[in-house]
Amino acid sequence: MDKLYIIKIGGNIVDDPAKLAAFLQSFALLQGNKILVHGGGKLATRVAEGMGIEQQMVDGRRITDAETLKVVTMVYAGHINKSIVAALQQHGCNAAGLTGVDGNFIQAAKRPLKNGVDYGYVGDVQQVNAVLVKDLLQRNITPVVAPITHDGKGQLLNTNADTIAQEVAKALSAYYETALIYSFEKPGVLLNADDDSTVIPVINAAYYTELKEKQLVFAGMLPKLDNAFAAIDSGVRKVIIGKAEELPLLISGNAGTQIIHD
Amino acid sequence: MDKLYIIKIGGNIVDDPAKLAAFLQSFALLQGNKILVHGGGKLATRVAEGMGIEQQMVDGRRITDAETLKVVTMVYAGHINKSIVAALQQHGCNAAGLTGVDGNFIQAAKRPLKNGVDYGYVGDVQQVNAVLVKDLLQRNITPVVAPITHDGKGQLLNTNADTIAQEVAKALSAYYETALIYSFEKPGVLLNADDDSTVIPVINAAYYTELKEKQLVFAGMLPKLDNAFAAIDSGVRKVIIGKAEELPLLISGNAGTQIIHD
Repeated sequence: MDKLYIIKIGGNIVDDPAKLAAFLQSFALLQGNKILVHGGGKLATRVAEGMGIEQQMVDGRRITDAETLKVVTMVYAGHINKSIVAALQQHGCNAAGLTGVDGNFIQAAKRPLKNGVDYGYVGDVQQVNAVLVKDLLQRNITPVVAPITHDGKGQLLNTNADTIAQEVAKALSAYYETALIYSFEKPGVLLNADDDSTVIPVINAAYYTELKEKQLVFAGMLPKLDNAFAAIDSGVRKVIIGKAEELPLLISGNAGTQIIHD
Repeated sequence: MDKLYIIKIGGNIVDDPAKLAAFLQSFALLQGNKILVHGGGKLATRVAEGMGIEQQMVDGRRITDAETLKVVTMVYAGHINKSIVAALQQHGCNAAGLTGVDGNFIQAAKRPLKNGVDYGYVGDVQQVNAVLVKDLLQRNITPVVAPITHDGKGQLLNTNADTIAQEVAKALSAYYETALIYSFEKPGVLLNADDDSTVIPVINAAYYTELKEKQLVFAGMLPKLDNAFAAIDSGVRKVIIGKAEELPLLISGNAGTQIIHD
């Protein structure tokens, strides 16, 4: 099977024009099959505030009412997605932007009430349809995915970009030897959350059990690691967690944390 | 050659949710190869006003400064494009949204000063690259095109949707028997601008010369007709002008004005 890299960049990169430009340049240079998944950043909040749309947060999560959905669709699928694609074209990488609605790529279901909280137009992924993305990759076109999905009944839905990256990686691991790369602020999974030099290079299932039993991993990392192992159990070859700025080193295994089965 | 319909809908349809929904339902039912090109509508102006971005107009044309470009990219490529694609998916039409930057579909050049006026980030089409769109059509995926292009150097550009429809039709007429359909407020080209019952069913080159000589056509229609004949001279089989609400009748030749070579 051919190799495929699915790289998710977080809002901290999207919000920083210099960091984003540097990342896109190194991403464009990456050879072979690759998919970029981007999150939102703070622009959606600024646009919503500008338009007088009040942002409701519950437990740090945005409630997506109809007006907020319009804003996130504009910002994620419009400005951010097309700006990223334009920059990649500039660097000789033939990219194409898409969301879950395009070519029926990702169908989702509107999230039901959770603990009495209505998150609004938020979608939980139900099905990834890989046909269009496989075609693009075969044409050497690099998909750039914005975190908007749909329910198949005409409703757009706001969907977590980490989840989209994971679901797309699972679906495509049937056709490619797939690595999923999560970029975030830290250089990897740390033994000491306050010391960036304590990156754990490799975590396999047995070591993860040991780390959890000895409570050696920062609690905030546990959901990310649980998700990473869930991806690996579904066919993804490895998950890499590290800094977007170190993309070539993450790919070559010389930076970040590699999460593998065994 | 297979037939292809390229249908451009104007802002008056995009601005009217009921009209847009009805149009998309009839568009979804249209058999065979088809491409939808949409314009902007008034939402971009509303969003810009909401964000406190002053809109400068010169001779009825919007000046696209950097902030306005961000807004039109958000509105055209984000909200409008994805809402249209979601509605088409709902009606069983597998659509995919794209702009000129995706797959390097449409390259443009920033418009030079005209009569001392700097239109800002406005693009004049230079090249249409049909590869991606042909692939989508072969997969029975219907492209939905938002009027944003790029210069290949990382700069997005705002581009007239009528022009995009025309340039795409020209480029694809090498591969398909292409009909270009412009929908607007009137039921077709009228002999009497105040009487909707005076639609001219067919205009060929000879008749157009006669109409112009006898000054029988409303002056406002002349640029549209000149563009239509330019498209036909470049290989487009016919141009149809009429109401979006009458799409099936426009296609079957039972409404609107058909512009043909002879």
